[in-house]
Amino acid sequence: MTLLEKTLAAINGADQEAAAEAKKRLDCLTKPLGSLGMLEEMAMRLAAVQQTVFPQIKGKVVMIMAGDHGVVNEGVSAYPQEVTPQMVINMLKQGAAINVLARQNNAKVVLADVGVMGAPIEHPEIKQCKVRAGTGNIVREAAMTEEEAITAIEHGIRLVNEEIDNGANLIATGEMGIGNTTPSSAILAVYSAAPIAEITGLGTGIDDSGFREKVSVIKKAIENNKPDPQAPLDVLKKVGGLEIAALTGVILGAAARKVAVVVDGFISGAAALLAYKMKPECRDYMFGSHLSQEPGHRLMMELIGLKPMLHLDMRLGEGTGAVLTFNLLEAATKIISEMATFEQAGVSTQS
Amino acid sequence: MTLLEKTLAAINGADQEAAAEAKKRLDCLTKPLGSLGMLEEMAMRLAAVQQTVFPQIKGKVVMIMAGDHGVVNEGVSAYPQEVTPQMVINMLKQGAAINVLARQNNAKVVLADVGVMGAPIEHPEIKQCKVRAGTGNIVREAAMTEEEAITAIEHGIRLVNEEIDNGANLIATGEMGIGNTTPSSAILAVYSAAPIAEITGLGTGIDDSGFREKVSVIKKAIENNKPDPQAPLDVLKKVGGLEIAALTGVILGAAARKVAVVVDGFISGAAALLAYKMKPECRDYMFGSHLSQEPGHRLMMELIGLKPMLHLDMRLGEGTGAVLTFNLLEAATKIISEMATFEQAGVSTQS
Repeated sequence: MTLLEKTLAAINGADQEAAAEAKKRLDCLTKPLGSLGMLEEMAMRLAAVQQTVFPQIKGKVVMIMAGDHGVVNEGVSAYPQEVTPQMVINMLKQGAAINVLARQNNAKVVLADVGVMGAPIEHPEIKQCKVRAGTGNIVREAAMTEEEAITAIEHGIRLVNEEIDNGANLIATGEMGIGNTTPSSAILAVYSAAPIAEITGLGTGIDDSGFREKVSVIKKAIENNKPDPQAPLDVLKKVGGLEIAALTGVILGAAARKVAVVVDGFISGAAALLAYKMKPECRDYMFGSHLSQEPGHRLMMELIGLKPMLHLDMRLGEGTGAVLTFNLLEAATKIISEMATFEQAGVSTQS
Repeated sequence: MTLLEKTLAAINGADQEAAAEAKKRLDCLTKPLGSLGMLEEMAMRLAAVQQTVFPQIKGKVVMIMAGDHGVVNEGVSAYPQEVTPQMVINMLKQGAAINVLARQNNAKVVLADVGVMGAPIEHPEIKQCKVRAGTGNIVREAAMTEEEAITAIEHGIRLVNEEIDNGANLIATGEMGIGNTTPSSAILAVYSAAPIAEITGLGTGIDDSGFREKVSVIKKAIENNKPDPQAPLDVLKKVGGLEIAALTGVILGAAARKVAVVVDGFISGAAALLAYKMKPECRDYMFGSHLSQEPGHRLMMELIGLKPMLHLDMRLGEGTGAVLTFNLLEAATKIISEMATFEQAGVSTQS
């Protein structure tokens, strides 16, 4: 069996008995039943993931996968392609938004080049996992071969396993790749009946004519490649991206190890959708984060069954929304383990 | 001049030049323009509050005001009135949700009895500010006299000033008071044209018949007391609450000292609405937090012009949603001070 096959086979649903036990405890705590809403839901879900009524967050890591997109030649992005390696270097120098937010939230940043254009980026901290230098232009050809897609997924699996071996038990997905909202909208379009114009956004900030072009590019990419919704790997290789493939691997890898993974915005959501289609049980290990300004993000989250909690009108990616969600997941674990029960506190219950 | 008059006179709008300088800096940072959404907006607003491009969070405090409500005799709450002092004691013993979340977010808890039923609660940590033991039953009488309302407001002003003198520069509002969604809906009803049934919720968890009774109670309270929307103090004394009055004072006091104050859920929102009606400029110092499950909360926030960022389906109060928002405000301050500029990082700008 390949690493991908082994990983898929290792994914089982989370422990619903632990979730039920967690609910029992939450219902004894000094607050009206269910009044902490999503915090309680997260406590139950983390209990199921970690198979204990008292889940704990120990090591936090944001896994940033970087890759380029041949489709950028069609003018779908407001920024030139050279920004991908420039931003990767900025992240390595701790200057990007994700570095700031990861530091604030005590999370480690892991950064991998799975498909940036050009030569390898020289830096001791970068994970050298370049499968190829950018994808094919999906308007005319497949983004990558099936073998390349599997290799990229397996990089993600290996990278997340390494972090889990080193003590991480809360993962965030992140990415960098100029042009990557285009393949993300294409992936979503394959799995939804929504008109493409309604699930396509402005990315980093294109104008109206750029937007019309982007919608037309996505339509053509799907018409020409004919991705098969029944085969998520086919969708990934035909209209996906290398960083999206690696993130699919990160999510599957975390789920196989029973580790919670927080899904960032629109591009991470496309990876999550593919992971979910490959093995629906992996959803038990995924947590929603923020609601992106990309118009397709809400639908994407609904298709997977995730609830974004942060409404911040963000559209940056990098894992920024996911890392901000760490604090809420930690709050959930502390609520269930540190609050007093009605009995302990001598508080009267509902009349 | 009374303390309330002095405080109102001291409130001026925040520094819009500092906000404009902050925007200039945000636009130079290595991210697409505006792509950090509300984080950028908060950075600008905090810059205006603190009159510097690089705002900083130093001391964090959640101010919990506790009081009881005579209207509980009408059966508007799922919990008996004795729960107010019991929960205050639970908070003093560190067992409540707010204690757990304040600890997680490095915030100090300040707890004041401004109107709990019964004798003073004996504890070295509680602030003894009981104006009276519970409000009058607003179906039949005013909640309190104007003098009592002013005294409660001034307790809030004094308490927040004490914390600011001790180094706090980020305040959260919190409260405890069985029955306090009823006066909060009544206050909102005075300031909106929405039908009372649409801005009334289940509070801690009443049933359908309880809900109908609650709506009818709020209608009667307004009909019988005839609060004057032009006079926020009249609204407060007739259909408000002692903890709501004290929170109004906390907000006005923070604004007068140019300190940011995060408004928690529905009850805190009622206090914020009254503070805003007393002195609209105080809005510059208020920040939204979570969107409560109470159906009137969204409208309440719109009336003030605040945007809740956390969508967690919470309805607990105590300041829980506000304290969870501290992390987002800190993130905003770190983004503006720690991210690299395009120039520093050598990243190409928009094409």
